[in-house]
Amino acid sequence: MPAKKTIKNNYLKSIPGGVTASLGFTASSVKAGIKSSGAADAGLIYSNTPCSAAGTFTTNAVRASSVDWCEKILPAAGIHAVFCNAGNANACTGKQGEKDTAAIAAAVASTYKGKPGSTLVAATGVIGHFMPMDKIIPKIKELSGALSVKGGSKFAEAIMTTDTKKKECACEVVLSKGVCHIGGCTKGSGMIHPKMATMLCFITSDASIAPELLNPIVKHVVDGTFNNLTIDGDTSTNDMVLALANGASGVTVSSKNDLARFEEAFFFIASALCKKIAEDGEGATKRVEINVTGASTYADAKLAAKAVANSNLVKTALFGNDPNWGRIVCAIGYSGARFSNEKIFVGLCGAPVFKAMRPVAFEAKALSKKISGKSVEIDIDLGLGSHSATAHTCDFSYDYVKINAEYHT
Amino acid sequence: MPAKKTIKNNYLKSIPGGVTASLGFTASSVKAGIKSSGAADAGLIYSNTPCSAAGTFTTNAVRASSVDWCEKILPAAGIHAVFCNAGNANACTGKQGEKDTAAIAAAVASTYKGKPGSTLVAATGVIGHFMPMDKIIPKIKELSGALSVKGGSKFAEAIMTTDTKKKECACEVVLSKGVCHIGGCTKGSGMIHPKMATMLCFITSDASIAPELLNPIVKHVVDGTFNNLTIDGDTSTNDMVLALANGASGVTVSSKNDLARFEEAFFFIASALCKKIAEDGEGATKRVEINVTGASTYADAKLAAKAVANSNLVKTALFGNDPNWGRIVCAIGYSGARFSNEKIFVGLCGAPVFKAMRPVAFEAKALSKKISGKSVEIDIDLGLGSHSATAHTCDFSYDYVKINAEYHT
Repeated sequence: MPAKKTIKNNYLKSIPGGVTASLGFTASSVKAGIKSSGAADAGLIYSNTPCSAAGTFTTNAVRASSVDWCEKILPAAGIHAVFCNAGNANACTGKQGEKDTAAIAAAVASTYKGKPGSTLVAATGVIGHFMPMDKIIPKIKELSGALSVKGGSKFAEAIMTTDTKKKECACEVVLSKGVCHIGGCTKGSGMIHPKMATMLCFITSDASIAPELLNPIVKHVVDGTFNNLTIDGDTSTNDMVLALANGASGVTVSSKNDLARFEEAFFFIASALCKKIAEDGEGATKRVEINVTGASTYADAKLAAKAVANSNLVKTALFGNDPNWGRIVCAIGYSGARFSNEKIFVGLCGAPVFKAMRPVAFEAKALSKKISGKSVEIDIDLGLGSHSATAHTCDFSYDYVKINAEYHT
Repeated sequence: MPAKKTIKNNYLKSIPGGVTASLGFTASSVKAGIKSSGAADAGLIYSNTPCSAAGTFTTNAVRASSVDWCEKILPAAGIHAVFCNAGNANACTGKQGEKDTAAIAAAVASTYKGKPGSTLVAATGVIGHFMPMDKIIPKIKELSGALSVKGGSKFAEAIMTTDTKKKECACEVVLSKGVCHIGGCTKGSGMIHPKMATMLCFITSDASIAPELLNPIVKHVVDGTFNNLTIDGDTSTNDMVLALANGASGVTVSSKNDLARFEEAFFFIASALCKKIAEDGEGATKRVEINVTGASTYADAKLAAKAVANSNLVKTALFGNDPNWGRIVCAIGYSGARFSNEKIFVGLCGAPVFKAMRPVAFEAKALSKKISGKSVEIDIDLGLGSHSATAHTCDFSYDYVKINAEYHT
């Protein structure tokens, strides 16, 4: 997995839009009255052509019933729809929660005369409350009726909680047999009233790809992107990434070269969505990217990158525009990643600050000014091997505490 | 290791004082000009009788030279002194740092005509700066001359950084052959100008106990106390707990019963010092204790307790006096600890809030009022076995961010 990903080729191109940028996908949103704000709070993604689908799910042992629902089904062919609501997580709701998730899937599937198991379900919001089924079920027909190829953004808005902006992106990728598209949207770093952070991501493609080929790509890409994203180190009960490919482009992905290129495009989308979550992290004033190279193993690269990304001390220092490399080195030290005492290197916003276990002199004022920008890159070379990983996060400000301490019921 | 520790017997008694509450120990402090505030910043603990000594050390791979110095020596007999300075961590200072630590030990040992290896060294403060040896070495004679049986508090004050109060305690324990004492002091949850948090703890006893018996007691007790303490999840480069026993009470600890009682007393001191660190955590408005019972293994109990103690979401909610049990349950869920869906139980300040994967109704206002007090207890029963563990932490307030973001050079 490359540490950085910028488009440096002629087969991959960023395009406007989100989940409906892929051919054959429509989406919509509705106001079901789940969010107390009255904003749109339920969305639907639909493909008339059945999709290959795969997903990755939270590792939290306390899980929402929607996570169980999707994990049981995926990977699979024959998927048509994804329903997602915001405002209620349907987690810690026992048997009733399971029933409600199944009932939502059945109601959505009935709109296209499909089986309940062809609809995936996701949820985000308050924990430990039963789903307001009396509000949701009557709105499903409206949701289905509103489906549109322009609906991607509406879906992306409906799933927001304390997100301050909608997060979507799309690309076009040239494969050996033609052009196909990948589009996605995500929500995250948000809390709702004031219970639980949740990261959800939906990625569509009009490529034709078998579930057993799509599945490892999703797992691999998520491992290198969303699994290296942290806002506050808390793993939610509801996290999931769902990918659907409907084949509407007529382009089949099966050769080794095409699979590699498709994965690269998929990584591009996932990585871009990751960065959007990081820059919209609760209370964030800047986005932070930690690029680790020179690791003995990929696991070591991840350990080091994630330890720095999770350090409250590093993140409060960045909020304070403080070039505090000692905290970065400390986090590498306790990460468990192996490094070379002679070759270890740390750079902050392009300036070397630590080398071979010793400080490197730098202009503190100039560096502090660089840190005060909208994004900060921390480069770490462990000096041992050729493996790399990137972690994504944001700084840690007063507003993180405010959002999480003062949002009272 | 018991989950809670209050004195419920007639052989263990809390007494005033700290490291010099144990017979035969003296201590002192001096102003060496390392702290920019001009406050006392170096301290010495001394015993004329040679001590058995043992220690536990940071697991951070980036370590101060003082940590390396002590770990190389301990466990050992024949120890006479502990020198500690605040204001400079002597970490990331390479070969020069090692030389400086050895020179300090030699200078201290020369005051009592001992070998350098009979002096232990500890340091806390800014990382990546060389020790101001020109300031420290000339002060060591003064430090030695000032040694006094009343000096324990002065030592405890000299090692403070952003600690708002000195932290010491002592006890008397009746063993089969007589009475002995254990006294300790600690510093922690502090940052200095604005580099690195460090936890240091020094425990003395006038019991006579062989190093090979003292060592496992120290490791075991630290594992059940300081290793379950977290303020911000960052493991420092300089952490250590040092224990010295000089035998001045004339009471030998060797029988199984006496060892158990001595360990209980040692646990009592370590646990009390732990709580003092938690309540003085950076920005803390309240102390938080997480008691986990019913775990299949001690490892599971620790996992669950520490995950909750480390959760920024739990800690910001407690700062906001919010009875947000969802965040507690979420942290248990991602901790990796096994639990019974049928028997899991969570209590907050004595009120049941979650049982068998379902919410328990409670009076939110009344519970919020309880949480607004000076200490909060979270009780978690995993419903599987008989193992337990306690984690110590504090809430997470605006002032944590302030202290760590705005303390500029």
